[in-house]
Amino acid sequence: MPTESNRQWVLSNRPTGEPTLSNFELVEEPVPEPGPKEVLVRTSVLSVDPYMRGRMRDSESYADPWPVGEPMRARSVGTVVESNHAAFEAGDTVTGNLYWAEYAAVDGADLEAVDAGSAPDSTALHALGMPGRTAYVGTVDVGRVEPGDTVVVSAAAGAVGSVAGQIARIAGCRVVGITGRAAKVDWLTDDLGFDAAINYRTADDLSDAVAEVCPTGVDLYFENVGGEISDAVTDHLVDHSRVAVCGKIALYNQEDGDDELVGPRRLHQRTRTRVEGFIVSDHADRFDHVDARLRRWVEDEAIRYRETVTDGIENTPEAFLGLFEGTNLGKQLVRLEDGE
Amino acid sequence: MPTESNRQWVLSNRPTGEPTLSNFELVEEPVPEPGPKEVLVRTSVLSVDPYMRGRMRDSESYADPWPVGEPMRARSVGTVVESNHAAFEAGDTVTGNLYWAEYAAVDGADLEAVDAGSAPDSTALHALGMPGRTAYVGTVDVGRVEPGDTVVVSAAAGAVGSVAGQIARIAGCRVVGITGRAAKVDWLTDDLGFDAAINYRTADDLSDAVAEVCPTGVDLYFENVGGEISDAVTDHLVDHSRVAVCGKIALYNQEDGDDELVGPRRLHQRTRTRVEGFIVSDHADRFDHVDARLRRWVEDEAIRYRETVTDGIENTPEAFLGLFEGTNLGKQLVRLEDGE
Repeated sequence: MPTESNRQWVLSNRPTGEPTLSNFELVEEPVPEPGPKEVLVRTSVLSVDPYMRGRMRDSESYADPWPVGEPMRARSVGTVVESNHAAFEAGDTVTGNLYWAEYAAVDGADLEAVDAGSAPDSTALHALGMPGRTAYVGTVDVGRVEPGDTVVVSAAAGAVGSVAGQIARIAGCRVVGITGRAAKVDWLTDDLGFDAAINYRTADDLSDAVAEVCPTGVDLYFENVGGEISDAVTDHLVDHSRVAVCGKIALYNQEDGDDELVGPRRLHQRTRTRVEGFIVSDHADRFDHVDARLRRWVEDEAIRYRETVTDGIENTPEAFLGLFEGTNLGKQLVRLEDGE
Repeated sequence: MPTESNRQWVLSNRPTGEPTLSNFELVEEPVPEPGPKEVLVRTSVLSVDPYMRGRMRDSESYADPWPVGEPMRARSVGTVVESNHAAFEAGDTVTGNLYWAEYAAVDGADLEAVDAGSAPDSTALHALGMPGRTAYVGTVDVGRVEPGDTVVVSAAAGAVGSVAGQIARIAGCRVVGITGRAAKVDWLTDDLGFDAAINYRTADDLSDAVAEVCPTGVDLYFENVGGEISDAVTDHLVDHSRVAVCGKIALYNQEDGDDELVGPRRLHQRTRTRVEGFIVSDHADRFDHVDARLRRWVEDEAIRYRETVTDGIENTPEAFLGLFEGTNLGKQLVRLEDGE
């Protein structure tokens, strides 16, 4: 058992509108003792994701809000320090839903061995993890992607969007990404094989920009943002098009009664568009199937990824807040000094 | 109005087992006069297809049997000679369900203008016609093709199979064709981009041959043949696999009580395989959508095709009987001397 302390971030109070550093507090506690069937894990890398904003809100959603005064949670990769669960032993590399923390003691049943093949273990937090699964399920199962479709992905350079666009490319589609920085536009078109990418911050008229690169309209929109970007894509949805609603990061910091960014505001019944929200965990029975494909594609470099790494547990809130500014290219991770 | 006669093939008697030349009779009649709303078409090229064997049988199917003593029918391309229908005028190139005949007078509502873009008009009878539509609907709508699938197509060098395999390739799949001649194996792998092709006539053990080129099993089987080939593929269907049953040419010449070639005989409940037969005409509401994609792919050479052309109306039965021998590579057509 290590004798060091365990630094962890707790939710000190709920944000109003955009979260700030004052919503979080770094506390230092003893390293937890694993109970029966529990495993003590030392975090090496943790994931910050837009969905966390929803859990910080005290309102009903598909999952319970996180309590004030309790540690923030995060999908993480780490090393087993001590195990009271038959499936794991000290030294194993595992992934699971841990905390913004250096150590976690969790039920072994909630952990998985990391199986990233020749890819780095951190891919278990993006291309080979929940973001990759979300991309697959949203594109294939919910979006019912069809060869020849024109597929538009918003937040296209993010962890989910970048994989969703690449899966659509593999699936024989014309793929258009929407993103907010020139470097991301270049990455999408030069490295990931997107057919076109739009910088929504510099486009004169976003709806016109979508029309220009989608000459036959939009068959499938993989929705990560909501708001005005969503409106611009909605203008060009064709008959029998689909919108797979993965998230709406542009709306996450809105308060009730704030009607600046709503949507879809321009959807017409005429096109018989199917708009469908989804939660990746509802598709858990597909994960073995999906994981095998993602692993093969990452291995073959049919799917490429980038990581934006912030060093140090103390910088976790900044890394999280950066997601709403779009500072990350690909997956935003936090690497812990003690974790290596 | 032309003064020539109209040569046409009638079904003189129903075949027992394999059809022979004696089932057909070439008769010579006056060129028909088009009635109100009718259009007189001179056939330039007509299509012979395996499904015709079913219509020659006097038993219930999805369509009525063709009457003995009446002309055999065929999807054809021709030129309008005389029109009593507002949509067409003399000189137009049209396609529709005509006859094994030099001329046909049919309701203008049953004809379509040929719109093959830069491709030859005859593609309206295969890549851009019913075989292409059948391939698309079978692969996408019925087969629910998914990127990363391993797709096996039987009768893979035929009009439907060759397009089905190419659509699966576009859709991001590993594609394996099964066919019966070395030249067809070469065409599939060298020209059409199939990942592998199997010659079922020379394979030592067909089931082993399928296993060898499908290391992760078969996700989707596009079934054109039935019988022993179908059995060999069925052995390797994975969990949640699909079989899109387009046809079973190996069984078409069987009589009731002939149980030599049945199937699927080896399907296990364990894999939760979905086997679904389909008739392309049930999907007519999708044809505009499907046609636009096929046209684009043929234009881009993402879909390639071959035609096996038999010259002369008098050789139509031989061309039809050849389908059961597999003498055609790609689409089997009959070109009429008068039609050019």
